[in-house]
Amino acid sequence: MQELSAFEQAAVWAVLGVAIFGIAYAFVLRAQILAQDKGTARMQEVWGFIKDGANAYLSRQFRTIAILIVVLTFLLAASVFIIPPTREAVEHFGSEEAATLWVALGRAVAFLMGSLFSYAVGFVGMNVAVEGNVRVAAASRKGYNPALQVAYKSGSVTGMLTVGLGLLGGTLIFMVFGIAAPDALLGFGFGGSLIALFMRVGGGIYTKAADVGADLVGKVEAGIPEDDPRNAAVIADLVGDNVGDCAGMAADVFESFEVTLVSALILGLVLGDAVVGTLGDGQYDLRFIVFPLVLRAIGVIASVIGNSIVSTDEKRRNAMAAMNRGFYVAALVCFIGFAGFTAVYMVDPTTGAIDWRPFLATIAGLVLAVALDKLTEYFTSTHFNPVKETSKASKTGAATNILSGLALGMESSVWAILVICASILTSIAIYSGYSTDPTVTLTAVLYGVSLTGIGMLTLTGNTISMDSFGPISDNANGIGEMAGLDKNARNVMDDLDAVGNTTKAVTKGIAIGSAVIAAVALYGSYLADVSKVQEQIGVPLAEQLRTIGINVAMPTVFIGLLIGGAVPFLFSSLTIRAVQRAASQIVNEVRRQFKIPGVMEGTVTPDYAQAVSISTVAAQKELISLGLIAVMVPILVGFLLGVEALGGFLAGIILSGQLMAVFQANAGGAWDNAKKYIEEGNFGGKHSEPHKAAVVGDTVGDPLKDTAGPALNPMIKVINLVALIIAPIVVTIPSGSPGVIFAMVLCAAALVWAIWQSKREAPSMTTETPAPATTAKGV
Amino acid sequence: MQELSAFEQAAVWAVLGVAIFGIAYAFVLRAQILAQDKGTARMQEVWGFIKDGANAYLSRQFRTIAILIVVLTFLLAASVFIIPPTREAVEHFGSEEAATLWVALGRAVAFLMGSLFSYAVGFVGMNVAVEGNVRVAAASRKGYNPALQVAYKSGSVTGMLTVGLGLLGGTLIFMVFGIAAPDALLGFGFGGSLIALFMRVGGGIYTKAADVGADLVGKVEAGIPEDDPRNAAVIADLVGDNVGDCAGMAADVFESFEVTLVSALILGLVLGDAVVGTLGDGQYDLRFIVFPLVLRAIGVIASVIGNSIVSTDEKRRNAMAAMNRGFYVAALVCFIGFAGFTAVYMVDPTTGAIDWRPFLATIAGLVLAVALDKLTEYFTSTHFNPVKETSKASKTGAATNILSGLALGMESSVWAILVICASILTSIAIYSGYSTDPTVTLTAVLYGVSLTGIGMLTLTGNTISMDSFGPISDNANGIGEMAGLDKNARNVMDDLDAVGNTTKAVTKGIAIGSAVIAAVALYGSYLADVSKVQEQIGVPLAEQLRTIGINVAMPTVFIGLLIGGAVPFLFSSLTIRAVQRAASQIVNEVRRQFKIPGVMEGTVTPDYAQAVSISTVAAQKELISLGLIAVMVPILVGFLLGVEALGGFLAGIILSGQLMAVFQANAGGAWDNAKKYIEEGNFGGKHSEPHKAAVVGDTVGDPLKDTAGPALNPMIKVINLVALIIAPIVVTIPSGSPGVIFAMVLCAAALVWAIWQSKREAPSMTTETPAPATTAKGV
Repeated sequence: MQELSAFEQAAVWAVLGVAIFGIAYAFVLRAQILAQDKGTARMQEVWGFIKDGANAYLSRQFRTIAILIVVLTFLLAASVFIIPPTREAVEHFGSEEAATLWVALGRAVAFLMGSLFSYAVGFVGMNVAVEGNVRVAAASRKGYNPALQVAYKSGSVTGMLTVGLGLLGGTLIFMVFGIAAPDALLGFGFGGSLIALFMRVGGGIYTKAADVGADLVGKVEAGIPEDDPRNAAVIADLVGDNVGDCAGMAADVFESFEVTLVSALILGLVLGDAVVGTLGDGQYDLRFIVFPLVLRAIGVIASVIGNSIVSTDEKRRNAMAAMNRGFYVAALVCFIGFAGFTAVYMVDPTTGAIDWRPFLATIAGLVLAVALDKLTEYFTSTHFNPVKETSKASKTGAATNILSGLALGMESSVWAILVICASILTSIAIYSGYSTDPTVTLTAVLYGVSLTGIGMLTLTGNTISMDSFGPISDNANGIGEMAGLDKNARNVMDDLDAVGNTTKAVTKGIAIGSAVIAAVALYGSYLADVSKVQEQIGVPLAEQLRTIGINVAMPTVFIGLLIGGAVPFLFSSLTIRAVQRAASQIVNEVRRQFKIPGVMEGTVTPDYAQAVSISTVAAQKELISLGLIAVMVPILVGFLLGVEALGGFLAGIILSGQLMAVFQANAGGAWDNAKKYIEEGNFGGKHSEPHKAAVVGDTVGDPLKDTAGPALNPMIKVINLVALIIAPIVVTIPSGSPGVIFAMVLCAAALVWAIWQSKREAPSMTTETPAPATTAKGV
Repeated sequence: MQELSAFEQAAVWAVLGVAIFGIAYAFVLRAQILAQDKGTARMQEVWGFIKDGANAYLSRQFRTIAILIVVLTFLLAASVFIIPPTREAVEHFGSEEAATLWVALGRAVAFLMGSLFSYAVGFVGMNVAVEGNVRVAAASRKGYNPALQVAYKSGSVTGMLTVGLGLLGGTLIFMVFGIAAPDALLGFGFGGSLIALFMRVGGGIYTKAADVGADLVGKVEAGIPEDDPRNAAVIADLVGDNVGDCAGMAADVFESFEVTLVSALILGLVLGDAVVGTLGDGQYDLRFIVFPLVLRAIGVIASVIGNSIVSTDEKRRNAMAAMNRGFYVAALVCFIGFAGFTAVYMVDPTTGAIDWRPFLATIAGLVLAVALDKLTEYFTSTHFNPVKETSKASKTGAATNILSGLALGMESSVWAILVICASILTSIAIYSGYSTDPTVTLTAVLYGVSLTGIGMLTLTGNTISMDSFGPISDNANGIGEMAGLDKNARNVMDDLDAVGNTTKAVTKGIAIGSAVIAAVALYGSYLADVSKVQEQIGVPLAEQLRTIGINVAMPTVFIGLLIGGAVPFLFSSLTIRAVQRAASQIVNEVRRQFKIPGVMEGTVTPDYAQAVSISTVAAQKELISLGLIAVMVPILVGFLLGVEALGGFLAGIILSGQLMAVFQANAGGAWDNAKKYIEEGNFGGKHSEPHKAAVVGDTVGDPLKDTAGPALNPMIKVINLVALIIAPIVVTIPSGSPGVIFAMVLCAAALVWAIWQSKREAPSMTTETPAPATTAKGV
């Protein structure tokens, strides 16, 4: 391996140290939280149900996906033997045989690591959130700041674990594999994304099935209040908040955090190879790899500093300001740290000139995060016109409310795409004229895009802390309500809950935006990777992908583009249906339990675990088929239509995935808040006809914003990574070979099974008495 | 000009003759219809209002767009002077000066011709439909077959006019311009598409604004029945059926019919140039142009034959079977005609072998039309599971109904794209190995795709007849109801009305599918056209677009793709809002008139003309801004990001346009029929809670399926044609030149104005009494 300078070696070890420090910090925080008071016996009783339900979900999910993970680990290791090892791997490990073995092992282990880290972030994040809930409720009896501290620190555990594990994985792989890292990094990214997809989809189906199911029977049919303990699905509903909003979101952002790093390292290697001597001469400028690693480490330190100062006092009682202060301090630390490191490190050894371009591209990411955040806020907050108009449209009924939300969601998607375009254009502008060789300039631009992704997610430690704060305060408030805490404590929790709704919305915009930026950067490495393999197997330069490009004017590439664009529509359609199907099972179960003597009278505790179990099983059932679709479709497209068409396919997925994700997330968010705006006393207030209309919109929005939309983030990246992994095989193996044909038949069969499985009709769900048409959710 | 053989000359003249015959046949049919009895005085009174309203709409629309047409005609003529004339034009007209002048004149005249033809199809089609309405009602008193005859013949006028004018324009341009035809053909296509866009958008906004507005105040607020003469908007509602379903649909299909011919001629010329000698040697194989012209002529003759046998008797009374018989006979005539002509004409002069490939590509189009038809039927008909499931979902309220429809619409879009992919793959398979030169093979494949488009729309004469039959029977039934015709007559019209609903659905799938196929074919000519200009201005081959392609891995091209994909979302969002805005104006007007003494008592006739006028003006107001967006965005993308990015932009528009068009059309269609399915007595029947829920879905679907979705067809093609027209200018003029900067500033200003204009808030629409949340449409 090419040697790092002493400074660089020290820097990489320091990065490793920071990663471990971040993880350790998370566990210290966790211990602090566990040491807090858990409140009264009644509080602990309610909380016990939630805790059991949450644990049941995660262990069941683990069993469902464990087999798939094991199978994929072996397949990934085996896939390495099909293609010749890369030049870099041979150089790094000394011989072809050693290279093949190490890469196979590395990819498999990295995949396992990515999966487990992603799962761990979701698991621990949810676990701490559940532990935190009851303690926030308990602390709220002591005062505002104690409650805020417990809630925010619980969130910080997830935040610090996300950045710590993300950085640890990337750094370890680079330290072991050096210039041969890309192969293993792909495995790492794939593992993380796949688990994130499962957590997002499973969590999204679970939470909305429980929510819709509980409301349909409880509020609408039986006419009992929300969170009434007689409703068997009420605990499942509370568990759902943790499963969807904590575990799902944490795994999702972890995956974006990791994939932006993976793409920066892969592109940094290509660029580092290209700028020194000629491509493939074994000479590298390794600064392009060390730079993003150190940036991430600075971000982790900044997050720790920012998180530690989040505090308020009993006079001000302003949680939002406290969190914002932490965020801004962290941003400032980052800015200074980035600038300082750039000035010291990115210096031309001969001229002494500082290369500010990577710094600028990273800062562009920070700006992009803020812009997307503001955009999401504009379209989904009750303070601006779009949501007000949707509220107003409720005056003429549910239909106009729905239409208004659909129009709003579609429009917001347009502006989000323009903001992303602007950030890519910025990278083009920063790196224009980088080299006389246009392919090197192109690589530099793509590297710039990946740095923009790094910049966007720099403050993930803070963002996730703020995001997890949301469901934690929400659940604490729920426990407080059920356990009948006093007025003062309830006021504290009400306020924290409201602040949590705002912080949750902020994260969503960043999660989606970073997904697209990460996907664009990954897409950039597709071209480089495929060409490298083509070169190795002796494809002439004129026929290599880097020369012919992904030409959408070619009919096969255009077909790839069309199929890719259709996938997010298929995925959204199937996840929306999955929620409806799972909800109908919950409905049947709650009805069954209502008929048990004593339940409706409140003398017999309903079997909460049964409802939790049904939601859990129903969600898991859908996972495998959706996961299969994400993995099988790119394989089929690649082998049937070729690597160029697969490139077109990826472009189509990114485009339509981004449009559909933002459309669904913002339409759902707007309907939700349009209802809240009416509940604040506008247009007739709660229980008015406009409110009933707005409730319909809110119910329509639920699966869109919490299941279908968010699932598209990890889906885009899973598919990108599968494409990156299989493309070298597609290039190497002749498409007519018996092995390929056999594999294609298998893939096609799996795909057909998956789609058929996902399209099963819902079990019969007949309403006992026809529900009022106004709402499936009640008021 | 290269000479046509005597046979070919005769063939082209024969095609011209057939085109004129088709038009003449349309006018003969029209005269036959006008000679029919118009029924009682009351029938004529009601009909008089509709007729006046329809005429008012079209003349107002003409005035709105006339200025834009005049301006664009001059701009188009002027645009020719910016770029050097093509080699073919110089060859055809003798000198550079003559070529420039003729092409400028030709493009301007062709644009005018395309606009006027498109307008004429819409105008005459609607006019005859209105004339036919009352006469169908009158004929229904005589019997089933007489009524069917009048209704179908009225539809045939539009059908024959569509194919006659479409063929006439293309043939005339080819006869005058020969190998220099492409420039003028682009003008012809652009004119037709732009007017179709206006007719679709204007008609869509008009019809849904009147429909929603009339229902909101009449049925929901005042509680009076649908079509009650006291409602001032009731005539506007009836006029709307004609404006949207007759004029809008006819102009739309005319435009697809024309654009598939335009792309076949353009690609046929490129292919004809490439297969003889070398590209640009002035030698052509003109068969590739004559072939599609003759095919179209055969289609016209087949349609005349098919249309003329549509008849039933008083015993069978089966309108659907009669129309299907006509369709199948026409299809058979086509098949035999195509095969015969291929066997005679597509013969290799040296080997004597028949080239069946163009024939097969055309037949693939016929198959595609049937496949899309069946797909639309499966997803939107009450006889299949999808609509039944949406109906069933209404049992748990409006929200689950909406979610079910959304999931269904998204899924249907996936299958529609796969069917289109299959047809492009068929063309690839047919033309694989066509030439040793891969660019020639590519051209052949794209030519094959354009022939698939020709095949799809071969039976446009029948399809449009069947489609127009729908609104004609619908209106006849309305007149019959208002004029109180006897039971027998009403039964006849009820049956025809029901059959009309089916035939309308059939056309919609074909209209959307043909739009995408036409756009793909146009997209193919983009590459050829741009490269030709690049070659002429001396760009080396390695830098020409045909060599570098539309490489989406290039960041600028990717940005183009992202922006392109966003446009259909913007367009849909704006059109949905436009409907809501226009509807609120109608609501205010109907309320005002209800307060006039005597109107509610039925003693004073409301001012129907005023409601018509408001709908008309409101629809026109939205037109200009939506038209500006369609024209300005590609210009801006082209000049700011270059021709490659513009290519990416087009790919993005086609992809997301197709997905959104089918999604919205089928979701809307399914909601509509889910309501009908319940009305047929399922899940509680009319006036039940599930029915109320389904009405919400139907109202949400109205603007999606009748405004936003259908407007995307012509929009995709307008933008494609604008791109084809400006690309040579982008290539020729340096982007930093003062003229370009000035033009860009103008375009950007126009775009900002258009978006701002389209986003104005609706005038205040407060419900007098809050409407029930169940429905904005009433039951």
